[in-house]
Amino acid sequence: MFDKASALSEGRRDMPLISFEGSEGCGKSTQVALLAASLEEAGFRAVVLREPGGTAIGESIRHLLQHDEKNFAMTPETELLLFEASRSQLVREKIAPALARREIVICDRYFDSTTVYQGAARRLDFAMVETLNRFAVGAYLPALTILLDLDRTTALSRMSARRLRDRMEEQPEEFYQRVTDAYRALARSEKDRVILFKGGQAVEEIAREIRETVWQRLSLPPVQNPAAENKCV
Amino acid sequence: MFDKASALSEGRRDMPLISFEGSEGCGKSTQVALLAASLEEAGFRAVVLREPGGTAIGESIRHLLQHDEKNFAMTPETELLLFEASRSQLVREKIAPALARREIVICDRYFDSTTVYQGAARRLDFAMVETLNRFAVGAYLPALTILLDLDRTTALSRMSARRLRDRMEEQPEEFYQRVTDAYRALARSEKDRVILFKGGQAVEEIAREIRETVWQRLSLPPVQNPAAENKCV
Repeated sequence: MFDKASALSEGRRDMPLISFEGSEGCGKSTQVALLAASLEEAGFRAVVLREPGGTAIGESIRHLLQHDEKNFAMTPETELLLFEASRSQLVREKIAPALARREIVICDRYFDSTTVYQGAARRLDFAMVETLNRFAVGAYLPALTILLDLDRTTALSRMSARRLRDRMEEQPEEFYQRVTDAYRALARSEKDRVILFKGGQAVEEIAREIRETVWQRLSLPPVQNPAAENKCV
Repeated sequence: MFDKASALSEGRRDMPLISFEGSEGCGKSTQVALLAASLEEAGFRAVVLREPGGTAIGESIRHLLQHDEKNFAMTPETELLLFEASRSQLVREKIAPALARREIVICDRYFDSTTVYQGAARRLDFAMVETLNRFAVGAYLPALTILLDLDRTTALSRMSARRLRDRMEEQPEEFYQRVTDAYRALARSEKDRVILFKGGQAVEEIAREIRETVWQRLSLPPVQNPAAENKCV
């Protein structure tokens, strides 16, 4: 399923681009915010982007994907192409310029989401999904992908406590099982780039582990700011 | 530029699907309407679809492509993916069911527009454009493509008389020259499928030539309705 020889698999340690992945309700947004805050406290400039969305055009596409009633007729192929359109815009309008300004870029979802949701869960052709991912991201491959793994029962209870679920989140249960399985397979087959964190632990404990991994992977200098230092140990 | 061995090039004579192509202001919409009327008069059911658009989702994408102010930042890659998303939806939601109901489908633009505008004029990678075209259209290849060829001066005078031009129509002049050249090259390299009609003649004369070509290509029985018969000769 995941080709280790794939150019997308390898990641780029020289590029301070970090993606977060995981199923709905896994705690991605919380961990993204905590990591961005740690980086800022340590004196780095961090920019947080989300997919689909992150640009004016991408947010219009996000709306089309998630909220319009008429979209219940949307075919899987159309959905795939819209995700890639949003990504293509995000990479060229936001990610590339931010990296050129030497900012650290954190993406709340990136191309692995498409591999997992459209490829594994919706069962579109993997080769086509990879071709489109590659076209959309170009050279912008993450140095590190943080995968938050959470069992479905905990995720569901978090989501129902939080809000109504949108179109993408209203799928049969076996869809979510395929998502979870595909994410775990991704972490097994791309150990160098994709690091799996168990989502059942305390939020601060996961955040600490993520910080350590990011600092090590991006070869960031040790934290000078005492406040951030306290947070890191 | 156009690979004759391409599966997309061949067209399918067994499929009553006709596409109209040409640059802005060439008279496509008029000729599409006249052909549809002739087919209906002759007792066939004809459905007219346009690209981008033709479905609720596609019309939202059309709006994003053509009218939003924020789209002036749209990258060529994003534009390509949005056209293909609209097409993918049109094929599966409208074209396939109409053909299954034995209707004749007329598309006001189809995948050749993407080859010409995004491939030749915007200079995106032709192989990627063809891969995406093929993914979007699947098996739904036109039996016949009618190309209306009009010199730019006449087209411009028609357009300024008609309305303000939208985002897609606000390009440097060399862009339109590339469009015209690419359409002519397409007609030369795919003689079996793509028939070029000179747009400078009287509207009814072009309509008559198009009718003859369509009747012959789709092997339609001779017209029984005397009113339509009069129009055809």
